[in-house]
Amino acid sequence: MLGKYFDYNATTPLREEVASILIDNLLLFGNPSSSHSFGQFAKEKIEEGRSQVAALINADSSEILFTSGGTESINTALKGFFFACDKRPFHIITSKIEHSATLELCHYLASLGAEITYLPVDANGFIAIEDLVNAIHEHTALISIMYANNEIGTIQPIKEMAKAIKQINRDIFFHVDAVQALGKIPINVHDLEVDALSLAAHKIYGPKGTGALYLKKGNQQLVQLLHGGGQENGLRGGTENLLGIIGFGQACALATEELLQHKHNTVALRNYFLEKIKHAIEQIEMNSPEIEGDVLQNTFNISFTNIRAEALSVLLSQVYGIAVSIGSACSAEKAELSHVLLALGLSEERIKSSIRISFGLYTDYKDIDYLVDSLKEAVTRLRSILPVG
Amino acid sequence: MLGKYFDYNATTPLREEVASILIDNLLLFGNPSSSHSFGQFAKEKIEEGRSQVAALINADSSEILFTSGGTESINTALKGFFFACDKRPFHIITSKIEHSATLELCHYLASLGAEITYLPVDANGFIAIEDLVNAIHEHTALISIMYANNEIGTIQPIKEMAKAIKQINRDIFFHVDAVQALGKIPINVHDLEVDALSLAAHKIYGPKGTGALYLKKGNQQLVQLLHGGGQENGLRGGTENLLGIIGFGQACALATEELLQHKHNTVALRNYFLEKIKHAIEQIEMNSPEIEGDVLQNTFNISFTNIRAEALSVLLSQVYGIAVSIGSACSAEKAELSHVLLALGLSEERIKSSIRISFGLYTDYKDIDYLVDSLKEAVTRLRSILPVG
Repeated sequence: MLGKYFDYNATTPLREEVASILIDNLLLFGNPSSSHSFGQFAKEKIEEGRSQVAALINADSSEILFTSGGTESINTALKGFFFACDKRPFHIITSKIEHSATLELCHYLASLGAEITYLPVDANGFIAIEDLVNAIHEHTALISIMYANNEIGTIQPIKEMAKAIKQINRDIFFHVDAVQALGKIPINVHDLEVDALSLAAHKIYGPKGTGALYLKKGNQQLVQLLHGGGQENGLRGGTENLLGIIGFGQACALATEELLQHKHNTVALRNYFLEKIKHAIEQIEMNSPEIEGDVLQNTFNISFTNIRAEALSVLLSQVYGIAVSIGSACSAEKAELSHVLLALGLSEERIKSSIRISFGLYTDYKDIDYLVDSLKEAVTRLRSILPVG
Repeated sequence: MLGKYFDYNATTPLREEVASILIDNLLLFGNPSSSHSFGQFAKEKIEEGRSQVAALINADSSEILFTSGGTESINTALKGFFFACDKRPFHIITSKIEHSATLELCHYLASLGAEITYLPVDANGFIAIEDLVNAIHEHTALISIMYANNEIGTIQPIKEMAKAIKQINRDIFFHVDAVQALGKIPINVHDLEVDALSLAAHKIYGPKGTGALYLKKGNQQLVQLLHGGGQENGLRGGTENLLGIIGFGQACALATEELLQHKHNTVALRNYFLEKIKHAIEQIEMNSPEIEGDVLQNTFNISFTNIRAEALSVLLSQVYGIAVSIGSACSAEKAELSHVLLALGLSEERIKSSIRISFGLYTDYKDIDYLVDSLKEAVTRLRSILPVG
């Protein structure tokens, strides 16, 4: 069944090794805040998870704060800094292609008086550093940029951005949404001058409901999103998601080990897929960047001329058992045109005919054969039904 | 090992049936927001969980919003209403014996200009309805009261409180922290005129990292705590904690079935324990109410004269493998006197000599024998070492 799943950017299955460690720890249950042995043993497991997550991004364990997922991490960083900072007016810079968590949050902060700049992107989804630099002014307090885009895979030059930002004003809080980048490209926070980085377990074969926020040492003066019992160094109240953290830690440990190998495999699969689909199906257009580096190798956003993406995805799902997505999963409930594809400057027609295909750990060559064969059949069938032009 | 665990109010082990359903669903992984079959199957599981949680409190499924736990539920209700409501000045009424999530949050809202009234309690931990009514004034917008107290077990007359509040002003938002009450006493939201109720899975043998907020129909105008992708009816962004919700649902379904039987068992164990410990150990004082009804039957807060609770709990843990708690788990990291026992009017000396014992599903008579025997030995040993008086 996994061979028909091409929506790894929406979420990933639990890795066998992660499932197995969850089973091993199902009976572990102490409250990590309790001083007795049940509690202390649970606490040790959480600290082990914390160092595994830290290792994947070369952070110190003390810089990792566990949350319930990427959305909570982003909210913790952005709201936490906004409410902690007494700088007013308060100017935020972000981009037009951020995840809905960031965009919705910015709309909300705007309603509280923040000024928001939404940076444009080029046809490949890149933000120009010059635009970023030019947007900074005396009231700029917070910048939030996505490391790798979930719909088209574009990887922003975070290191160069951080350098440029800090050169202008070291006090600007630079948050990076690394949810989609984690486990796919090497992330080394030592090397990046970022203040905060949001992560999620379920995008790297860990359980849903767990995430983390990297907060650089000395940058921990945020207003808590979850006021409570002083857990997570006073930064996040609430009993810790013990199993979730154990699973996230294990997923990170495996990703640390296998990242390079996984990347190489993905490049090979990518090349195979692109050659095959271009040969098999006419009138398709790539919306994700067709470049060598700086793009997630597993991500393909493709328009099929004269096809409605909804019809194609339903046909693929119902007849072939194949899962792809239209836009991102997180905005699938809203019947809107993808804001990411709009930002690329694509026409409404082209956006409405686009689907996202994303590969993962369990994708292999024969799965790609099945995908392309099915796509070809489905597209042919739909084009024969639908009036062309 | 579970026979030595007497800290069920801090957290509970996963029930076997819950562990088993988690194992059965480890391979289920779709993103509930995805429209393909992987996603839709996951969505069905979440809706099943939602109706199981709803059933336990006699709510409608549409009134249940999933969160990452009790602390997030409380923050969602209180912050969500505070930021959504344009009533200023904004007056909040709560009590002196609330969970730290509520108290910390109220301190924060006070820093934003809210006026907070902390109601006192009597020697048994009860809030007088008269005090509540007298505290309400024209600016009162929000009232938050704990259903059953985690440290001493006192059950507040929520139904009568709600009636009194709504009689004065129907627009006051009445939130109830039912985290500790859930699964221990029947809760029927149809019968209670409350606007919101916070719940947590890990207190009723479900997984950590999952909770819910009951939001009465028509009361759903809160500012999101987690801005994001429009999940949970637009009230809470973030990919849902699929396994957590499945486990929470199962735990609720079992609690719905067994609540009465479990309550009867607990009463029998309570009577056995109280008789035994009073006979076995001299100079003890009960801090939790010694009354028939309106107190959680599983909860005992006891002072041992001339004993330091820290020493007793360490000895119990290290020599006997027994887990009890000092204060609540959620404030164990702060070395403070219990605010709950202080509110009862107890002396510092008495508070410092008090431990909390809480029974649960796996407690039986021979466990109580072992507990009392161990307590007797440990107390005798400590009293012989420590200078008396």
